[in-house]
Amino acid sequence: MEMELQVGVAKVSKYAVSESGDTLELTERPQGGLSLVLADGQRSGRAAKIISALVARKAIALLAEGVRDGAAARATHDYLRTHRQGQVSAELCIVSLDLATRTIVISRNSHCPVFILSPEGLRVWDELSEPIGIHAGVKPVITELPVAPNTWVVVFTDGVLEAGERSGASFDIAGWVTNHLDHAGATAAGLADAVLARAIELDQKRPQDDMSVLVLALLPLQATDPARRLTVRFPVPPI
Amino acid sequence: MEMELQVGVAKVSKYAVSESGDTLELTERPQGGLSLVLADGQRSGRAAKIISALVARKAIALLAEGVRDGAAARATHDYLRTHRQGQVSAELCIVSLDLATRTIVISRNSHCPVFILSPEGLRVWDELSEPIGIHAGVKPVITELPVAPNTWVVVFTDGVLEAGERSGASFDIAGWVTNHLDHAGATAAGLADAVLARAIELDQKRPQDDMSVLVLALLPLQATDPARRLTVRFPVPPI
Repeated sequence: MEMELQVGVAKVSKYAVSESGDTLELTERPQGGLSLVLADGQRSGRAAKIISALVARKAIALLAEGVRDGAAARATHDYLRTHRQGQVSAELCIVSLDLATRTIVISRNSHCPVFILSPEGLRVWDELSEPIGIHAGVKPVITELPVAPNTWVVVFTDGVLEAGERSGASFDIAGWVTNHLDHAGATAAGLADAVLARAIELDQKRPQDDMSVLVLALLPLQATDPARRLTVRFPVPPI
Repeated sequence: MEMELQVGVAKVSKYAVSESGDTLELTERPQGGLSLVLADGQRSGRAAKIISALVARKAIALLAEGVRDGAAARATHDYLRTHRQGQVSAELCIVSLDLATRTIVISRNSHCPVFILSPEGLRVWDELSEPIGIHAGVKPVITELPVAPNTWVVVFTDGVLEAGERSGASFDIAGWVTNHLDHAGATAAGLADAVLARAIELDQKRPQDDMSVLVLALLPLQATDPARRLTVRFPVPPI
């Protein structure tokens, strides 16, 4: 079956903070495919942004040179720990479509689980892992999935995980995602938007932390041409 | 007026060649905003891809560190010329939304013009520039635009510029773009798709070269939330 890759990302910053402390970057893999890096810097605002950007760019630079994902995560940890003397932590998730191995590779250094949906069902991948930057020798937990149609990977930062907690609610992300995918015509962008919208709603429209959602999907080919497409949209802050 | 940034990219490889020799990468700017790099490696296929990827990644890595666009283009030229001993050329275009200076900065080392549309009309920016990689001391031509609503920037590689030439036709890109934007509700993604589709049609559905279109638009704010969004879609090549 012919397949297409879809990626959807949606992110907002904490309420009344102009800059998100989460950073999302992507690059094409030199052996084919795509890598996405989502980094969440400790705390929020400018200080967190500097850290998450540092981390995301280091990981992306390594991946763009062909460094394997696990080594890129380890190196990024060592770099942050050296650069900031073990004083600052970050959470890091790398999701790659690796066309050389025909797998999706997910590397996590985060307390946020990753949801993996395939025709076999939902897997909440919450294997214990440490954030990067603090302790010596930290490594990521890694899982690999075959490239197969109707595979969905949903990654998010803790602002999404903890949405609603302030008001005693909690976000049943698994239920929300499963319901959304029960409808025909679901897209990666649509799912990312739906998860983010629900998280914002649970925080009563005032996100209590930076929130980012990254969805990667392998679906039966829908495009009628072989083009690769990328779009970006975001509000330009007023002067 | 509140504004949003829209980016749309669409690209295909030369007919019957699996890999495009064009590379598009993007990164967030450390002082705010976004940079996009489009590189076109000499010739097509794998050899061209290696060069365009090398060039795009070098430029992106510098921009991600906060290097100004003109210096990033010069450094990328020097890097390619040193690395390949002046034997290999590439065309390079950098388009940045720079929120520190509140400008759009366009840097070109390409024989392909860049189209700039604003409420003042269409500007075909075709100032002479040299490709990078061959001669000593090459620098980009640069133009800056104020951040203002209803500004469109259209960048493409020579597969688009020369579409139809094989069959004696030629692509009136200016006319095509202007017509497209006369319709209400135009988006950056829609314009990129329309330009690419027309180029492919002019090559009788068999692109004679790699074709890439990058559109950046500043438009009145359309989203009702402050989220940043990114999407990617592309066919996964069969085994």
